Amino acid sequence: MRATTIHAPGDIRISEVPDPVISKPTDAIVRVTAGCICGSDLWPYRGENEIRAGSTIGHECVGVVEEVGGEVSSFRPGDFVVVPFCHSDNTCAHCRAGMHSACDNLGITASGQAEYALVTQAEGTMVKTDGEPDAALVPSLLALSDVMATGWHAAVAAGVREGSTAVVVGDGAVGLCGVLAASTMGAEKVVIMSRHQPRQEIARQFGATHVVAERGEEGEAAIREITGGVGADAVLECVGTDTAIQTAFEIARPGSTVGFVGVPHGVELPVRRMFSKNVGLAGGMAPVRAYLPELLKLVLEGRINPGLVFDSTLPLSEVAEGYRAMDERRSVKVLLQPH
Amino acid sequence: MRATTIHAPGDIRISEVPDPVISKPTDAIVRVTAGCICGSDLWPYRGENEIRAGSTIGHECVGVVEEVGGEVSSFRPGDFVVVPFCHSDNTCAHCRAGMHSACDNLGITASGQAEYALVTQAEGTMVKTDGEPDAALVPSLLALSDVMATGWHAAVAAGVREGSTAVVVGDGAVGLCGVLAASTMGAEKVVIMSRHQPRQEIARQFGATHVVAERGEEGEAAIREITGGVGADAVLECVGTDTAIQTAFEIARPGSTVGFVGVPHGVELPVRRMFSKNVGLAGGMAPVRAYLPELLKLVLEGRINPGLVFDSTLPLSEVAEGYRAMDERRSVKVLLQPH
Repeated sequence: MRATTIHAPGDIRISEVPDPVISKPTDAIVRVTAGCICGSDLWPYRGENEIRAGSTIGHECVGVVEEVGGEVSSFRPGDFVVVPFCHSDNTCAHCRAGMHSACDNLGITASGQAEYALVTQAEGTMVKTDGEPDAALVPSLLALSDVMATGWHAAVAAGVREGSTAVVVGDGAVGLCGVLAASTMGAEKVVIMSRHQPRQEIARQFGATHVVAERGEEGEAAIREITGGVGADAVLECVGTDTAIQTAFEIARPGSTVGFVGVPHGVELPVRRMFSKNVGLAGGMAPVRAYLPELLKLVLEGRINPGLVFDSTLPLSEVAEGYRAMDERRSVKVLLQPH
Repeated sequence: MRATTIHAPGDIRISEVPDPVISKPTDAIVRVTAGCICGSDLWPYRGENEIRAGSTIGHECVGVVEEVGGEVSSFRPGDFVVVPFCHSDNTCAHCRAGMHSACDNLGITASGQAEYALVTQAEGTMVKTDGEPDAALVPSLLALSDVMATGWHAAVAAGVREGSTAVVVGDGAVGLCGVLAASTMGAEKVVIMSRHQPRQEIARQFGATHVVAERGEEGEAAIREITGGVGADAVLECVGTDTAIQTAFEIARPGSTVGFVGVPHGVELPVRRMFSKNVGLAGGMAPVRAYLPELLKLVLEGRINPGLVFDSTLPLSEVAEGYRAMDERRSVKVLLQPH
């Protein structure tokens, strides 16, 4: 099949690789209807993560079941499914506690930017729609495979409550989905820290009530003003850099929690400040499967439209341009069509 | 008055210092019935914190109101009061959110190991008993001024729930109170990590169901066994050293929270592990006043007896011996009688 592979920083190609095959009875093969490029794919693209030259890349997709292993009973070829980027059996102690991203049988989608993807633990991972969804819904369904669930996880981890003030640090697709999550959870004020006008507009559509374009001390002062000097009730840190983390702890009110979902790169947590302010930290890799039934319902009912984060759609053959566009922040998130 | 002063590492004295005086209408003076030595007093005693030579030390006490300022209306001379170590107005936004240790008008008891203590923000800080309490209750009431409330805060921060498994790292007075808190909150298994037999016994009396004497990898293996390989539902980190913090994150189950209340010294938080395990951190300086009404009720009803942490009682004149005994771990916690 044709799949996206990475060979060195900045070197993204379409390669012919072996089709995935069912090797375990818990596997399934999904024909990818739509995949996409994740902000976290930019870490290796920018040379910040190690690269195994020639390996496939891409962990987000939705598609149609092509084939299932012998132990997969809830799905059959032809089913349209959302594929959480982390695969889980949905039966182990961690899954039962809603922490699917720590599943005893954890797997990760390895070829989401390709024609086909292998889903390990298919029974406990995939969620299907009732028939083939309307094409207009596909972007929002695709967003559920990672970014929307990840933004949701940030809001859950930060303890967003009805009537509260939530601040989102980061205006990437996950940060924007964090805005949507906080607003859906009933936060009264939802503030996004963003300097980029097109992203600000998506944030507004997602329910942001305030945009803070300033950074550093000026940005912190703006948050103080919005929160009456008290600080934010909940902070969603959706970047993963040290600067973003320090800002998050600075603007959080005492007793609150910073929810973090950006894979930390070069972060040194300010433990003394956390202690003196009683500001906690929670989060990590999102247990997508735990949130998926609820989020799918919200999408199907038209209550959330996370697909708006895709401001660009490309055929799979142009994936390299998709990476460039996201790397240069010309695009928020790129949807890829392999077929 | 006679007060405990610190002059250099290891140099604790009884000195004659000026009596505290009412300088603001929100002040009160309390004649100390009982004070005590805190584990955190050992940081300067051991030279790990800076010392202002000759300054008074001691932040925990109970006693009888001697005099109040003009704006203190709920207390009058003769009232027996518990004095939270951190003083708060109980009216600012942080206090209203239950985070009294971040009060806009925060103060700290400065002469708890002395004849008299000044309480700033007395109206919002002190809690009185109904008449003079029985002498047998004094140790437990004294424990409410810091250690019991701090252990409680660790349990609250760690999210201890009924039926859960809580592990307490640290067998100092706060750790022991953490055991009592977790058990009072209904944890089914309460594990204390302790190598010291007298402390293990207090922990058992406080509701510990398991004692793990091993440290490092062996200790972690013991916790894995007790928790069926899953890890602890809640971890109370009651020490503040890097070793204790690393152990805490190692034994916490994915999705859980480490509650920390030991002032961090030399701690580097394992941010990548926290992320990959989805284990959060919460806590800090305990908002004693927030918990005091509930804890006082528990003490007066005889449901908790945190005073058991005091395994030694000394006259104030022997305070230096008290510090030595705690420093050498011959004593868990020393109660001081100034009068």
